[in-house]
Amino acid sequence: MDALGRVTAEPIFAEVSMPNYHASAMDGIAVKASSTYSAHEKNPLKLRRGTDFQVIDTGDPIPEQFDAVIMIENVHMIDEDTYEIIEPASPWQHIRQIGEDVVAGELILPAHHVLRPVDLGAMLAGGVVEVPVISRPKAAIIPTGTELVYPKKKIERGEIPEFNGTVFASYLQTWGAEPVYKGIVEDNYVKIKEAVLEAVETSDFVLMNAGSSAGSEDFTVHVIQELGEVMMHGVATRPGKPVVIGQVKGKPVIGLPGYPVSAYLALEWFARPLVYKYLGLSEPVRTNIKATLGRRVVSVMGAEDFVRMTIGAVRGKFIANPLTRAAGVTMSMVRADGLLRIPTTSLGYEQGEEVDIELYRPLEQIENTMVFAGSHDMTLDLLATAIHKAAPDRFMSSAHVGSMGGILAIRKGEAHAAGVHLFDENTGEYNIPFVNQYLRDVPYVLVNLVYRQQGWIVPSGNPLGIQKIEDLKRDGLTYINRQRGAGTRLLFDYLLKQAGMKPEDVYGYNREDFSHLSVAAAVAGGTADCGLGILSAAKAFQLGFVPVAEERYDLLMTREFYESEAGQLLLSVMTSERFRRQVEDLGGYSCRDTGKVVYES
Amino acid sequence: MDALGRVTAEPIFAEVSMPNYHASAMDGIAVKASSTYSAHEKNPLKLRRGTDFQVIDTGDPIPEQFDAVIMIENVHMIDEDTYEIIEPASPWQHIRQIGEDVVAGELILPAHHVLRPVDLGAMLAGGVVEVPVISRPKAAIIPTGTELVYPKKKIERGEIPEFNGTVFASYLQTWGAEPVYKGIVEDNYVKIKEAVLEAVETSDFVLMNAGSSAGSEDFTVHVIQELGEVMMHGVATRPGKPVVIGQVKGKPVIGLPGYPVSAYLALEWFARPLVYKYLGLSEPVRTNIKATLGRRVVSVMGAEDFVRMTIGAVRGKFIANPLTRAAGVTMSMVRADGLLRIPTTSLGYEQGEEVDIELYRPLEQIENTMVFAGSHDMTLDLLATAIHKAAPDRFMSSAHVGSMGGILAIRKGEAHAAGVHLFDENTGEYNIPFVNQYLRDVPYVLVNLVYRQQGWIVPSGNPLGIQKIEDLKRDGLTYINRQRGAGTRLLFDYLLKQAGMKPEDVYGYNREDFSHLSVAAAVAGGTADCGLGILSAAKAFQLGFVPVAEERYDLLMTREFYESEAGQLLLSVMTSERFRRQVEDLGGYSCRDTGKVVYES
Repeated sequence: MDALGRVTAEPIFAEVSMPNYHASAMDGIAVKASSTYSAHEKNPLKLRRGTDFQVIDTGDPIPEQFDAVIMIENVHMIDEDTYEIIEPASPWQHIRQIGEDVVAGELILPAHHVLRPVDLGAMLAGGVVEVPVISRPKAAIIPTGTELVYPKKKIERGEIPEFNGTVFASYLQTWGAEPVYKGIVEDNYVKIKEAVLEAVETSDFVLMNAGSSAGSEDFTVHVIQELGEVMMHGVATRPGKPVVIGQVKGKPVIGLPGYPVSAYLALEWFARPLVYKYLGLSEPVRTNIKATLGRRVVSVMGAEDFVRMTIGAVRGKFIANPLTRAAGVTMSMVRADGLLRIPTTSLGYEQGEEVDIELYRPLEQIENTMVFAGSHDMTLDLLATAIHKAAPDRFMSSAHVGSMGGILAIRKGEAHAAGVHLFDENTGEYNIPFVNQYLRDVPYVLVNLVYRQQGWIVPSGNPLGIQKIEDLKRDGLTYINRQRGAGTRLLFDYLLKQAGMKPEDVYGYNREDFSHLSVAAAVAGGTADCGLGILSAAKAFQLGFVPVAEERYDLLMTREFYESEAGQLLLSVMTSERFRRQVEDLGGYSCRDTGKVVYES
Repeated sequence: MDALGRVTAEPIFAEVSMPNYHASAMDGIAVKASSTYSAHEKNPLKLRRGTDFQVIDTGDPIPEQFDAVIMIENVHMIDEDTYEIIEPASPWQHIRQIGEDVVAGELILPAHHVLRPVDLGAMLAGGVVEVPVISRPKAAIIPTGTELVYPKKKIERGEIPEFNGTVFASYLQTWGAEPVYKGIVEDNYVKIKEAVLEAVETSDFVLMNAGSSAGSEDFTVHVIQELGEVMMHGVATRPGKPVVIGQVKGKPVIGLPGYPVSAYLALEWFARPLVYKYLGLSEPVRTNIKATLGRRVVSVMGAEDFVRMTIGAVRGKFIANPLTRAAGVTMSMVRADGLLRIPTTSLGYEQGEEVDIELYRPLEQIENTMVFAGSHDMTLDLLATAIHKAAPDRFMSSAHVGSMGGILAIRKGEAHAAGVHLFDENTGEYNIPFVNQYLRDVPYVLVNLVYRQQGWIVPSGNPLGIQKIEDLKRDGLTYINRQRGAGTRLLFDYLLKQAGMKPEDVYGYNREDFSHLSVAAAVAGGTADCGLGILSAAKAFQLGFVPVAEERYDLLMTREFYESEAGQLLLSVMTSERFRRQVEDLGGYSCRDTGKVVYES
C-alpha cells in the first residue's frame, strides 16, 4: 500500500505466473477427460475415488493424473467412494491454466504510471512485492515577511497569519511532491539569502513568498541574482504579475506574489509543471464548459486576465458570474466554481456572451447546485448546510447582490431563488409590489423564510447613546451605509424620509458596504460609529444593537423551480424542526411563517 | 495540513477578520485624504513627515490619523522629511479594509465539504486553526482461505497470494475510509466467526473475502446468519454474482467474491456507497463517453453484464473492444480503459453499435493513446515505455490479436499501428502480400520494427532432444500451438507442409494459446513439451530454445498516422540508440532495419 499513488520508475514485469499451477475453477471433481467419453444419460458412468476422480475445490491444484473438472452439481454420489456422471468432460474444462491472469515475464505496468489500487493487485499477483518508484521532488517553502505570524486564533493588529505556506504545501502534496516548510523568515536580506542557500542544498526546487515585487523590502529578485541567475521577473497576467523565476546552484527558485490569489495561480502556472515534469507525467487537465456570462467582464489589453467565476445551471443553461477580482481575497478562490481566462489582446466579454470556463468543481456538483442570489442573511448559511446534509448530492450557493439584484437574477434566469426584503413605502407591504413590477412574464412563488430584527449596530454598550435616526445628525458621528438595491438601504432611506432628513445630514451616507457582516466589521474596527443591520451580525462582533424594525425576508422563486424536486427539497428542509431551532438560536429571528407561500402569480 | 482531504463535520465560520486592521494595499505613504485636496500639477503640495504623512509598506496598518495611501511612484521626495504630491488622494484609496478577505462570523465552508488546499488557507486567514471533521469510517478486511499466503516473490504450487485485501484497502483509503487489514483466516467456521465478532466490535463495517458463494467451504453466509442477519445472497450480475450482504450487531457485513474482478466491482457497488454515506458526501461519478463497438459483445438475459473495455481514439472516433470476461483476470482491470454495462434484459450489442462507456482513465489520456493491435512482441512493451518517457502526455496500448487481426483492425480504423509477421509461402516474402490483399483502399506504410528468432521452446536442457519438426511426431510428446491468424501459427503450418506432415501428426495441434509467453508458460508448467515462439519468451521462463527461423516483424500503419505528429514521435523513439540497445539486450533480435520503410502504397 506504500506504493499507492506513486509513479513507477521502470516498466514492471511479472516475476511469477498467476496462477502458477493449473487450478480448479469450480467446486467439483477432477477427472481424466479421455476416461469420461463413454458417459451418457442412458449409460451413466461410475467413477471410483482415487483412481477415476478426486474431490476438488475452487483454487485447488489439479492432480498430475487428471486434466478436467466436473462441477459438483453435475455429479451424482452413489456412495462415499463411487460417483456417477452422465456427460463426458472435455480436456481442460473448468481449469484455470497457469498464467490465466498474469504470465511470468509479462509487462504488468509501463514506467511513469501512477499506481492505482488494482495495479497493486496485479503486481502482487505477479509476485512483485517491491516496486521502483520515482522519488517525490522535494519543494522547499520559504515564507518571508516581518509582519507574518504562525496561524492562530487571535490575530493582533499589524499581524498577518502565514497561511500561504500551508496552501502551497497542500497543493504540492496533492500533485505528488514532498513539501518542506522552512518556517517564517523576516524581511532581512542576509537571513533570506541564508535560507535560500540552505534550501537549494536540501531540496529539488524552492518557493519563496512573498517579496517578489519591486518594492524596497522585496529582496527575492536580488537574492536570486546574487546567488544564481534571474531568468524572468514579472509576468503579464492579472492577478499574478510579480513572479520571479531563477536558479541557484542549478535548482529552480520561484518567487511567488504575496497576495493569496496571485500566489496560488502563479504556483499552478510555474510549480505544478515542475512537479509533473519531475515525475515524468503529463499535467491533468480540468474540464472546460461553455457558459453564458451573466454580467459584463472587462479587461485591459497587455495582460492575460484570470477571473474567478461562480457558475449556476439554471433551466438547462450554465450562467457564469465574476467574483471579486481583488488578489487578496482568498475566499474568492474558495467560492469559485471555475476560472475565466481573458487573452492579452481582449477587452473582455459582454453580458450574454458565451465563454469557456475551466471548472474548479466537478460538473455534476455544479448541475446539482441551487443558485441563490439576492440579499444576504445568515440563515442562508444554515440552509446551505441543512440541504447538503439532507441530500449529499445537492449543494446551495449564494451570491450577495442585494434584494433588487436577486429579483433581476430570477428574471434573467440566472438564479433558482432570491432572498428579498424590500419595504414598499407606498403600500407598507414587503416584496410583493417589487416582484409584481419586475416579474410579469413568469409565474413565480414567494415563500417566507424568516422575520428578522433590523436595528442600529453600535459599539458595545452604545457609548454614543444612539436610539433614533435623528441621533445620526450629530457632529463627528460616522455612519456606514449599505449599497443601493439592498433592502436594508431601502429601509434606511425610508426611515430618513419619515424623519424629514436628507442624505447630507448623515456623515458617511455615501460609504457603501455589501453585507451585514461588513457593516458590523466597520463598526467593530472603529471606522464607523453606527450602521443599520441585523442582530446576528452585531452578535458576531459582540457589538451593541438597538432594534428599529422587524422585516419580512422571503424567498422568491419561479413556479417551475418551486415545483421541482430541488424546490420541494428546499421547502422540506426549511420547514424542518431542526432548521427552525437553529435559526431561532441565532437570535433576532422568527420562524412563525417559514415555508408559507406569501404570494404567487 | 492534517485536514487536507477530510470532510467538515460542521459549517465553519471565521473567528477573526482578515485583515483584522486597515492595511496598506501598496508601498507608499499614508495620508489624511481631506488634507490633500489642494494638490495639483500646477500647485504641488508639500507634506511633512509625521504630521502629514508616514511611509508605509504593503500590509502595514494605517495609522489612526490617516485614511488613504498614495503609491510611492506618485510621490516626489524633496528631502528626508518633505515629500511632494501633485494629485489629491481620495478617502480609503489603496487601503485593504478590515474583513476585505474574510469577515469574522462569515461562513467560510459548509458542513460535509471536502477540504481543498485553498480551503485551508481561507480557514487559517479566518483564525480557524482547528476544524471538526467527520471521522473516517473504519472498514475491517478479513481475507479467508486455507490456500492463501501473504504476497511474496516465490509462490509455491497450491498457494494463492492474498492480494485482494491490499486492493480493497487501497480503494477504501482512496474513498476516505480507514481500512483495517485483519490478516488471513483459514477456512474454518469457528475461526471465521471469531474474526467477524472481533471486527464488528472495532470497526464500522466488515468486508469478508472470499467464501461468499454456496460451496461446501463457503462459510460467510452461515456465519452472518448465526451472528446477525443475512439480507441478501447473490446479485444478478456477471461478474460479481456471489455477494452476501448482512449485519452483525448493527454493523454492515459484506461477503465479497473471491475472483478479483468480481470482488473489485462488488466492492465499488456495495462498500463505496457505505463510505460516502458515512461521510455525508455524494459519490463522485465517472465520465461517460459514446464509443463504437469494434467487436460484437454478447450477453444473456437475467443478469447485468459488466464488460471491461479498451478504447482507442482513432481518426476522430472512439472504438471500444471487450477484454477477456474471465472474472479471475486482474490484468483485465489494469488494462481496461472503461466499463460497458449491458442491462439485464439485453442480449448484447452488435459490432458497429454505439454504446455508453464509463471511463476508467481520463479522456485526454485515451485521446493521446497510440492504439496497437496485432501480433505480440516483447519489444512493444519497451516501445510503450520509451514513448511515454519521451512524451509524458502520450501513451501506447497494445491488444494481442495476432498479425491478421492487426491488419483487419487497421482496415476497420480501430488501431493506429499493427505488428505483423506473416510469411507468404508462395512468394517467400513477409507481410507485403497480405497487406496488399487486405488494404487496398487506404494508403499505408510498412515500417520494420525488428528481425527476430523463432524457435522451439522446450524445457531447460532440451531433455527430449527436439531439433526439427519431424521430432514432434514422437509418441507421448505434447505440442502447444498458437491461435489461427497468428504469424507464428502460419510459420508452423508452413514448416509442417514443407516436412510433408499433417496436423494429426502433432499431438496438441488443436490446443491454441494467445501469446509467446503463454506458450512458454505451458512448457514451463509441464503441460506441453514444445511450442514455437521467440527467444525472449523462452528466456523469461529459463527454458531451452532451438532456433528455427529469423522472421521480419513490421509495423503496419496508415500513411495518415505515419505522417502525423504521433507517428513521427513513434519513428523517432524506435530509431533512438537507447531503444535499439534495450531491444538487443533482450536477445534474439536484430535492429538492422528498425525504422526503415519496407513498403508503402
